[in-house]
Amino acid sequence: MSGSATSPLAGMPTSTAEQLLRERGITGVAMRGLRPVGGAARLAGPARTLRYLPARNDVAAGPNGPVARAAVEALRPGDVLVVDALGSLDAAVFGDMMGARARHLGAAGVVADGAVRDAAAFPALGLPVFARGTHPAPSKVALVDWERDVAVQCGGCLVQPGDHVLADEDGVVIIPEDAVAQLAAAAARAGALEAYSQRLLEAGHPLDAAYPVAPALLDAFEDFRRDGVIPDPTEKR
Amino acid sequence: MSGSATSPLAGMPTSTAEQLLRERGITGVAMRGLRPVGGAARLAGPARTLRYLPARNDVAAGPNGPVARAAVEALRPGDVLVVDALGSLDAAVFGDMMGARARHLGAAGVVADGAVRDAAAFPALGLPVFARGTHPAPSKVALVDWERDVAVQCGGCLVQPGDHVLADEDGVVIIPEDAVAQLAAAAARAGALEAYSQRLLEAGHPLDAAYPVAPALLDAFEDFRRDGVIPDPTEKR
Amino acid sequence: MSGSATSPLAGMPTSTAEQLLRERGITGVAMRGLRPVGGAARLAGPARTLRYLPARNDVAAGPNGPVARAAVEALRPGDVLVVDALGSLDAAVFGDMMGARARHLGAAGVVADGAVRDAAAFPALGLPVFARGTHPAPSKVALVDWERDVAVQCGGCLVQPGDHVLADEDGVVIIPEDAVAQLAAAAARAGALEAYSQRLLEAGHPLDAAYPVAPALLDAFEDFRRDGVIPDPTEKR
Amino acid sequence: MSGSATSPLAGMPTSTAEQLLRERGITGVAMRGLRPVGGAARLAGPARTLRYLPARNDVAAGPNGPVARAAVEALRPGDVLVVDALGSLDAAVFGDMMGARARHLGAAGVVADGAVRDAAAFPALGLPVFARGTHPAPSKVALVDWERDVAVQCGGCLVQPGDHVLADEDGVVIIPEDAVAQLAAAAARAGALEAYSQRLLEAGHPLDAAYPVAPALLDAFEDFRRDGVIPDPTEKR
Amino acid sequence: MSGSATSPLAGMPTSTAEQLLRERGITGVAMRGLRPVGGAARLAGPARTLRYLPARNDVAAGPNGPVARAAVEALRPGDVLVVDALGSLDAAVFGDMMGARARHLGAAGVVADGAVRDAAAFPALGLPVFARGTHPAPSKVALVDWERDVAVQCGGCLVQPGDHVLADEDGVVIIPEDAVAQLAAAAARAGALEAYSQRLLEAGHPLDAAYPVAPALLDAFEDFRRDGVIPDPTEKR
Amino acid sequence: MSGSATSPLAGMPTSTAEQLLRERGITGVAMRGLRPVGGAARLAGPARTLRYLPARNDVAAGPNGPVARAAVEALRPGDVLVVDALGSLDAAVFGDMMGARARHLGAAGVVADGAVRDAAAFPALGLPVFARGTHPAPSKVALVDWERDVAVQCGGCLVQPGDHVLADEDGVVIIPEDAVAQLAAAAARAGALEAYSQRLLEAGHPLDAAYPVAPALLDAFEDFRRDGVIPDPTEKR
Repeated sequence: MSGSATSPLAGMPTSTAEQLLRERGITGVAMRGLRPVGGAARLAGPARTLRYLPARNDVAAGPNGPVARAAVEALRPGDVLVVDALGSLDAAVFGDMMGARARHLGAAGVVADGAVRDAAAFPALGLPVFARGTHPAPSKVALVDWERDVAVQCGGCLVQPGDHVLADEDGVVIIPEDAVAQLAAAAARAGALEAYSQRLLEAGHPLDAAYPVAPALLDAFEDFRRDGVIPDPTEKR
Repeated sequence: MSGSATSPLAGMPTSTAEQLLRERGITGVAMRGLRPVGGAARLAGPARTLRYLPARNDVAAGPNGPVARAAVEALRPGDVLVVDALGSLDAAVFGDMMGARARHLGAAGVVADGAVRDAAAFPALGLPVFARGTHPAPSKVALVDWERDVAVQCGGCLVQPGDHVLADEDGVVIIPEDAVAQLAAAAARAGALEAYSQRLLEAGHPLDAAYPVAPALLDAFEDFRRDGVIPDPTEKR
Repeated sequence: MSGSATSPLAGMPTSTAEQLLRERGITGVAMRGLRPVGGAARLAGPARTLRYLPARNDVAAGPNGPVARAAVEALRPGDVLVVDALGSLDAAVFGDMMGARARHLGAAGVVADGAVRDAAAFPALGLPVFARGTHPAPSKVALVDWERDVAVQCGGCLVQPGDHVLADEDGVVIIPEDAVAQLAAAAARAGALEAYSQRLLEAGHPLDAAYPVAPALLDAFEDFRRDGVIPDPTEKR
Repeated sequence: MSGSATSPLAGMPTSTAEQLLRERGITGVAMRGLRPVGGAARLAGPARTLRYLPARNDVAAGPNGPVARAAVEALRPGDVLVVDALGSLDAAVFGDMMGARARHLGAAGVVADGAVRDAAAFPALGLPVFARGTHPAPSKVALVDWERDVAVQCGGCLVQPGDHVLADEDGVVIIPEDAVAQLAAAAARAGALEAYSQRLLEAGHPLDAAYPVAPALLDAFEDFRRDGVIPDPTEKR
Repeated sequence: MSGSATSPLAGMPTSTAEQLLRERGITGVAMRGLRPVGGAARLAGPARTLRYLPARNDVAAGPNGPVARAAVEALRPGDVLVVDALGSLDAAVFGDMMGARARHLGAAGVVADGAVRDAAAFPALGLPVFARGTHPAPSKVALVDWERDVAVQCGGCLVQPGDHVLADEDGVVIIPEDAVAQLAAAAARAGALEAYSQRLLEAGHPLDAAYPVAPALLDAFEDFRRDGVIPDPTEKR
Repeated sequence: MSGSATSPLAGMPTSTAEQLLRERGITGVAMRGLRPVGGAARLAGPARTLRYLPARNDVAAGPNGPVARAAVEALRPGDVLVVDALGSLDAAVFGDMMGARARHLGAAGVVADGAVRDAAAFPALGLPVFARGTHPAPSKVALVDWERDVAVQCGGCLVQPGDHVLADEDGVVIIPEDAVAQLAAAAARAGALEAYSQRLLEAGHPLDAAYPVAPALLDAFEDFRRDGVIPDPTEKR
């Protein structure tokens, strides 16, 4: 790999991101139907987009998918390639060769609303890939790579170039570009608060006290952040 | 209605169009999943396109769907509005108001890969509409009108502005602009030949003789076109 | 029929009801996947509910579906029976016998998230029925009638006894009991305004002027309500 | 049409047939997902079968579907052609030409687990057709006609040549050949009893009295069959 | 964890349970469409139930899902929480916080006909979870927690509080409360017999001899149980 | 295991096989909807087929599935059992007992268009199994084993006995018997060329140079095969 870039959102759970966005009035950001290909995976980074349309044999597509190739070649370190393949499971829009090139260019991952191939290669390449399924044939048997760097749909969500993409075991979430900095700032506290809730529950506090943290227990949150101390659930408050 | 225009393909069955295109090497033209709304309907005409994307409440769509309105206002007599609504059944992308305006402008019909509303109004307006279903809410509750006069997918087919659209009880077929004149020319003979097959079958000729018409019966085709005479199936040939 | 009762919502299009509810902040009221059985149909009235669960042959259901029978017998004139049959297409939860009894009791119709049978009988009975499909077998082969007059899901919506149901060609909409009077009051003006828009469009006004009605044309609305006069689209305003 | 044959099951509702079979211990006979094509339709008759498989372009299928043609040519008056097209909606396995020939040979109808084309022609031909949908292209673009007169699946049911097929608004039911005579014998009484129930309900009897007919009302059944008299629901019994 | 309880069914394969129930005339007990979340998992225990309905924004749900919280707080050691979330994949009805509390209370696992979130946390918590999928948003965005400890549907099966739940790689099976003791008693012999069949097959006995075990080989079953000896397949019997 | 046989196609990626077949004009060979059961798996070998039909309780199936048992007993070392179970997820058509016998007989694996059970056993047996899902009940609850060694559909593809089957992470591909030798011969070069492309991409060559390998880099392919040397991407060519 010739370069790399870490997203300010890296490591944030998608559930936290979805909640922080919803608190800011932004919904419609959780994709549907995609899953990690080749094993558990997480990714975060700004979206570069690629739009496919159904193939029609009187419409000349260049040899070897020129638009798809250009989309891969244009990836910069940290970018996530978001592919609108119309949900098609009839052909693969991404495989080990494009994966190797994307990885070399430092891409942070791929999210495809369609099928991919060479599924076994992605973990080996260290490239996180989320897709709807797998198919052994290349895209041209059913699809044509039409344009790139335009607004697309993916997993039922609108994705514009520059939006950030965050994916983990729970799914894929789009973070509007404007909200990235806000979310990154809020994430640390949110994460600590969730860890505090989790520890309170493990210690035996009931749900109504621990999640969300009840006012009486919020006082002890700073103690927890400083030295990890958890209040005794049997103690009266 | 202030104007009208008849497609050279009007009246051609979609099955004939699909066959003539396939004979010319063009496949991938038959849409999937659309049906006439409000009763049996047929339409033919050049495509004008409209592309929707999933709504996201941080992305400003103009009030009242400005792109969709502009797409309707731009319709010329004989045009067919082809709407890529991503197959969504969560909101309607066309209704009686847009229908009344489209009809006034002389549009030949609407084909929407999504839902429409005011289904009862279309037969009254005399506007043929094919869609995936119906929903009482307007498009904005789930979708945003994004751009028009671009290539789109509809019913699993690529549609470019200027392609012709033909629809009947069997479905919706796209005819590439280049092929329209050829198909119109071939349709008359194809239609007469199918009518001849149909009459031969009604008269008792077996399938192998009547469809496609066997060489021995092709001689009598011109007689049939001239005066409707059908050869006797019991006569040796 | 021994009685009848007309809903204050009768005749309102579902699209109007959905819009008026949305303007009041109420969403999630449009069902998905149901269609009129036996031909075009409309209905309006308060909901009585019936909840099915999957059959399990160690769980004793009374002979002949006692809960379902009681639900039908309890219908009062104008009621709409809303059946949560879990979307099942494996058996029918309503047929001509229950339909005849419901009609006799003055029911306004049936909305079933599942299958019905004796589809040809409903138009003859004059009973509007909306369902997901048809199946010739009775409910007991796959389902058990569990309880009635409880909150249920139907077509993806929450329905509580007493909510009103409105259905037409575009679908089925739930109107919370509290909102019925408001909607009935607003409907007359909304309907007249839609008719005005429709006539403006037919007369040649563009969408931006006619729907929603532009301020310059609102002045003439009262004239239209009084004597049906439509402003000239070519006249400067 | 050169001949005709009326099934002993003609006119029996599928719901009655399903119930009579179930009472005899026979289940798994109601198809799923098929609907009349071109408008309401009913049919009854013995099954002749045709089995399709997915097309593969290295496997030679004869020109013009020789197996399908032979299946149609072998139809005798009253036969129902049952087509296992694997539920495919990618191509049509039956159209107006095969329909015209089948009608000429006296076929009672067609039931296809797949798509058909020329949907508008079937009502004109007087040929009832039940299918999963429509598609304008011929079968060969996706399927190959493989064999006939073998056991097949259709609508999720096993169909053997000689089984009888019964279809109406509620669906399609298979009647094992052995059970046809029994069902025909039982149908008259079952039908009269259902008519009696229906009339009792119309007269105001509650469901528990009228369907199934309660013992106290069974006494009056013979009176009803003789002269159509219905007991008074307000009379004590 | 403050407590624990082992089910008498723990370790029984679901295929064995389904067979033993079917032999006792009980069917309709195998769920459809659920899978382990976060890796292979097994569970067994009595069901506690929770029923969701679709959210509707005029229906007040308490803050933070009070019914769902109460359902978790009421779990006793060994209980399995069965959640009817209507099959929805639009929001998650269970996550790491409820999981931590459930685990602390000694719950044996969760079975949800819907989506869950924080999928990566469940293996870490040691809590087996079966669900239809994952989604990063909490339940309230699409669902409302309605009631608990009532009969529900889950995976297409009826589940009553107190029924036992058994889940492994093959799926989820419901065991009526009455049948638990019987099944536990029968399981030991059934399991040994299956192990005997498996060993016979590994030794080269054909299926007709080994599964189910043919009478000639049943004699040697007690030997196998005592000292693991398997008859020679080449020996005449 | 009493025997074994290695397919000449073993180790070839399905994507390579699909491409080599397509270059020879053979399409329609990639199955849809099947996945490895019990963890990652690969298989290759000639197909033996088994065809199920829907169960109907008046149609006598022998006890214990005689046709399915015969199909398993007839497996020879290296064979792949291909099961057409109509895509049903209502019952399992293959389990640990049939798996143990198949493995003993040297079978190379199983591909089932339906459900299997005892999913955890297959990795332990060393038997690769691809299926549509899992279900704990045996086949007889929903299906009947009808015939074997006939042409079937599986995953939407035609499979004839003797066709070869190849499966990996990307899916399942059918290789017509005639093409096996050709593909085996072409695979070595295709595989080396793909490895060369992969290494070129890792070294930083752009997609247009590396995949497919541009003429300027083909000269160095033989060097790569001989000693693994990769040209420098920064060197002018």
